[in-house]
Amino acid sequence: MTKGDEESTDFAPRYDDQGLIPAIVTDASDGSVVMLAYMNAEALRLTLATGEAHYWSRSRRELWRKGATSGDTQKVVDLRLDCDQDTVLLSVAMAGRGVACHTGRHSCFYRRVRSSPKGYRLEII
Amino acid sequence: MTKGDEESTDFAPRYDDQGLIPAIVTDASDGSVVMLAYMNAEALRLTLATGEAHYWSRSRRELWRKGATSGDTQKVVDLRLDCDQDTVLLSVAMAGRGVACHTGRHSCFYRRVRSSPKGYRLEII
Repeated sequence: MTKGDEESTDFAPRYDDQGLIPAIVTDASDGSVVMLAYMNAEALRLTLATGEAHYWSRSRRELWRKGATSGDTQKVVDLRLDCDQDTVLLSVAMAGRGVACHTGRHSCFYRRVRSSPKGYRLEII
Repeated sequence: MTKGDEESTDFAPRYDDQGLIPAIVTDASDGSVVMLAYMNAEALRLTLATGEAHYWSRSRRELWRKGATSGDTQKVVDLRLDCDQDTVLLSVAMAGRGVACHTGRHSCFYRRVRSSPKGYRLEII
């Protein structure tokens, strides 16, 4: 990255060596972080073109329109890139049940790390 | 991942093939997303042990206590793991100037993607 790229208005997302960029997803209704997903160039292109969040599933190795099966679609309200253009921040209106997590929860971040006499544990909140 | 891992209270963070886990960082004062960083096991261990955010710098290839040079330290208020335990969500109290970005901004996500007649552009906000 050359000096000044942080002030550039050129759209130039940077993908990792697997062709992916992480996308932080927030609920537009309250700003809370609901999930982290990954996009390839096609997923980002479709997200911008359709206004519906698309991701790349690393486990299934396929392009994925969020909610295509579950109905829990995500309409893009705002899409940003960070200073290095290697992370996406998506603000979405959550349709369907209003859940982002495959466990049926609103957010994937439902476990807090706690210290315990035996080391660290997770607390479901 | 076996069925039921999503309900486990075992602390078992999953690192990628480079030994890293992404960490979404939010400002505890307003919940806004300020940066995405990466931790290796030692950075996560130090973060939990000291209550001060530590990361792995992929560009410098070194462990990094946030704010060690700039004074913009991050005190951990809450630390969560997601359903797959492959992403960290940190809520931090931002000391120093209250900025997370190396450009001196509060957040690294200061550019919005906009469509334009010539394709997509970034708008600095």
